[in-house]
Amino acid sequence: MTEYTLDTAREALLALQRKMAAYEHALGLLQYDGATTAPKATAENRGASIAVLSEEVYRLGTSKETVELLEYLDSRKDELTEKERRMVYLLLKDIRDMQKIPMKEYIEYEELTVIADDVWHKAKEASDFEMFRPYLEKLFEMNKRFAKYIEPDKDEYEHCLGQYEEGLTTATLDKFFSKLREGIVPLLKKVSEKEQVDDGIRFGEFPIDKQEELSYYLMELIGLDLDHVGLSTTEHPFTTSLGSHFDERITTHYFEDDFVCSMYSVIHEGGHALYDTGSADELAYTVLDGGTAMSIHESQSRFYENIIGRSRAFCKLVFPKLKELFPKQMEGRTAEDLYRAVNKAEPSLIRTEADELTYSLHVMIRYELEKAVFAGEIEVKDLPREWNRLYKEYLGIDIPDDKHGVLQDSHWAGGLMGYFPSYALGSAYGAQFLAKMKESVDVDKCIENGDFAPINEWNRENIWKHGSLYTPAQILDRVLGEEFNPDFYINYLSEKCKDIYGV
Amino acid sequence: MTEYTLDTAREALLALQRKMAAYEHALGLLQYDGATTAPKATAENRGASIAVLSEEVYRLGTSKETVELLEYLDSRKDELTEKERRMVYLLLKDIRDMQKIPMKEYIEYEELTVIADDVWHKAKEASDFEMFRPYLEKLFEMNKRFAKYIEPDKDEYEHCLGQYEEGLTTATLDKFFSKLREGIVPLLKKVSEKEQVDDGIRFGEFPIDKQEELSYYLMELIGLDLDHVGLSTTEHPFTTSLGSHFDERITTHYFEDDFVCSMYSVIHEGGHALYDTGSADELAYTVLDGGTAMSIHESQSRFYENIIGRSRAFCKLVFPKLKELFPKQMEGRTAEDLYRAVNKAEPSLIRTEADELTYSLHVMIRYELEKAVFAGEIEVKDLPREWNRLYKEYLGIDIPDDKHGVLQDSHWAGGLMGYFPSYALGSAYGAQFLAKMKESVDVDKCIENGDFAPINEWNRENIWKHGSLYTPAQILDRVLGEEFNPDFYINYLSEKCKDIYGV
Repeated sequence: MTEYTLDTAREALLALQRKMAAYEHALGLLQYDGATTAPKATAENRGASIAVLSEEVYRLGTSKETVELLEYLDSRKDELTEKERRMVYLLLKDIRDMQKIPMKEYIEYEELTVIADDVWHKAKEASDFEMFRPYLEKLFEMNKRFAKYIEPDKDEYEHCLGQYEEGLTTATLDKFFSKLREGIVPLLKKVSEKEQVDDGIRFGEFPIDKQEELSYYLMELIGLDLDHVGLSTTEHPFTTSLGSHFDERITTHYFEDDFVCSMYSVIHEGGHALYDTGSADELAYTVLDGGTAMSIHESQSRFYENIIGRSRAFCKLVFPKLKELFPKQMEGRTAEDLYRAVNKAEPSLIRTEADELTYSLHVMIRYELEKAVFAGEIEVKDLPREWNRLYKEYLGIDIPDDKHGVLQDSHWAGGLMGYFPSYALGSAYGAQFLAKMKESVDVDKCIENGDFAPINEWNRENIWKHGSLYTPAQILDRVLGEEFNPDFYINYLSEKCKDIYGV
Repeated sequence: MTEYTLDTAREALLALQRKMAAYEHALGLLQYDGATTAPKATAENRGASIAVLSEEVYRLGTSKETVELLEYLDSRKDELTEKERRMVYLLLKDIRDMQKIPMKEYIEYEELTVIADDVWHKAKEASDFEMFRPYLEKLFEMNKRFAKYIEPDKDEYEHCLGQYEEGLTTATLDKFFSKLREGIVPLLKKVSEKEQVDDGIRFGEFPIDKQEELSYYLMELIGLDLDHVGLSTTEHPFTTSLGSHFDERITTHYFEDDFVCSMYSVIHEGGHALYDTGSADELAYTVLDGGTAMSIHESQSRFYENIIGRSRAFCKLVFPKLKELFPKQMEGRTAEDLYRAVNKAEPSLIRTEADELTYSLHVMIRYELEKAVFAGEIEVKDLPREWNRLYKEYLGIDIPDDKHGVLQDSHWAGGLMGYFPSYALGSAYGAQFLAKMKESVDVDKCIENGDFAPINEWNRENIWKHGSLYTPAQILDRVLGEEFNPDFYINYLSEKCKDIYGV
């Protein structure tokens, strides 16, 4: 047993996290390489390396030596800095949660998610829910069981929610979603009775190299440091930090016949990257580096994508660049055409392609279904039927097949039950942040002038620089100084609808 | 202490190598990412991760547990298979060599190479040998010292040579290079008296995307499996295996005004990749996976690049593709023009850009200089003068500055003393392999028909599939059944010169 003093333990705490960061760097890069560059038949080889390194980092994080160190520091937590306390808390929490799960079941679960993901891909391709059902049942069942192991006195679904958003309750979410439903469903009905906007501007022929030029232009425009943030292309866009916030990668997917998809992907992932790279440098190589919780992350990505990116001022700002890159395609078009096209609202099948107005309804449906399965009100086998029913009820559309319905998302196959609500929360947080930001920053003027520094500085000071030092609730409390209130989001959406559709 | 049986030890031996392969995969990918995709200000972050993981893999490879395992297996080596014996030998050799170096000096050396490489970059840029000299002196000194630690009874330079080519002696190399000198220097003199060939075909405007298409065409043509071999672009082309021979990456560098550079880079690196990916699958995730020694590796890369790639038949074969990709640039040109252009021979300053005929002379100069420094016949400070003298003597050219002279290669800055001769040996091996191959394969006919299967099968059976099961000497012995004889190479070069220059 190592004899620690407070000083040596503090050093050991940093050394431990540096080591973990190196493993996370390697693991992140292996995944990133698989999604971007790797030849197509190399997955098995990569999987073998990922398995070995994951086991090594797991062993490092849960070794007797590590537990001793963390418990020593925990026993002297009053003498630690706020940052150190949070590091010890986060590291110990992971270990203690893990220790409550029997190792055999933990490994079984890890294997299950790998197989389930593979089966899900095939089931989605074949639009065959029955193929996926046994795995999904097992995944729900094990998530429930693990929840009971870790927090025996808590509602199992609430435990799952808390994994992605510390302290989130179903009471909060019920209230939140019912407000959204009451606000958005009638709005959507009114919009659907109006004449639809013309979004012809987005379709045509847009060469990939020109779209790539647009990507870099947008990244620089919103304030990303291209010396530290890279761009690649993947099937599904994502953002990842490698080792620390000093090396960030975003990805996009280009469609030659529609430039808007990649344009807003880049701004969305760029928002994530702004948040991650905005961590204070002193947090690098610690568990506090990068953002706290998915919801705050989405509040930033969706803030840049929607609140900024789909504003009239932003469309005006970037339109000259579009004319320069796509002179023929933009002939006879205006910035206003762009503004209207990227704010077209209509019910659709696929969450990731949904517009701002309908997006939260997609999320709400998933939340209601997860909650019902956890509560035993419905069974996994009922999910396709219930999915289709809710899409009809909230969005008024018919689901043609499970591929475009219950099988569309990868989250459940990966065991991420309780993850979806963060997406909607993030959008709503963003709207409330905007109101707060406007108290000291002339946001519209900044966008008009292409001067994102004041906006980014506000986000940096209030949100980014703290990394995951604070919980989402603490961030909200510090930034807003008032309760989270989804009305800001409803109002924001209403104004947009009024502007575009006059409703 | 673990109690082994032969069976459990065998399993542990494989598990150890699987683990090592995962670390090598991660480390290789970090380097590859740095050279290909990473944003430019991320080197420090990457360096931090590489340092941590290198230490982990070093610790794994030299731990008490590992040594016990290997020594147990070594004590029962008569009961092991040939492959297992070789694995134990190679793993133990590394450890035993390492153990002879005081840890403090080992770490000092590791740090020195990192700094020396950085200084070398700057010194080369500034063409300032004096800036680099103190580091180079230290590097030579430490290489000498380490050689004495590891093999006290052996000539220090010979020890260094043996690190890259098991069993290689200065006697062999002296004989080899003197034959080359006697053969090549007069040939070069005769060539220089002839009218120079017209290589105008290679210059013009060659769009990168078309050159990329050419790269993939060539990779497939020579038989690479693109499902397992990827292509990227880098400043300096290279080849790397990730984790096992199932994931191989080659890189190239495109010049828009000269398509020949990248074309032959791709074939050269493709040759390395053919060798690596040709390892028997049962060698995957062991130290026997991939090629044995640099010289055999170069024999393959230079075989495909030069012997095949610069043959008349190959130029005929690929010319229609060039016409298709670059119709305007190829107007009025013929396959024969290509053949002559890519075989133009003339003395030049830079090794990596040298033609087939002069290439070995560049290598020979480096060999003579290294040998003289190790023997104390010259000092490091004399290297620029001696370099320039030898270039004048063998190649008849004047070195304008050290950037284009003694500072051009990165090898010495990385501490790779004794590495250069492999390049020349590989070229010569290739010529002798060709003669042997022709006994059973109609090589010219195969190339003419674009049917590389018989050529590749011959290489696979004789060389590739063995990975590093055999030493280079054993490979030569098995393949040739006769002594290595550089006359094959001289004859090959002479015939080429006769064909192109009529000398």
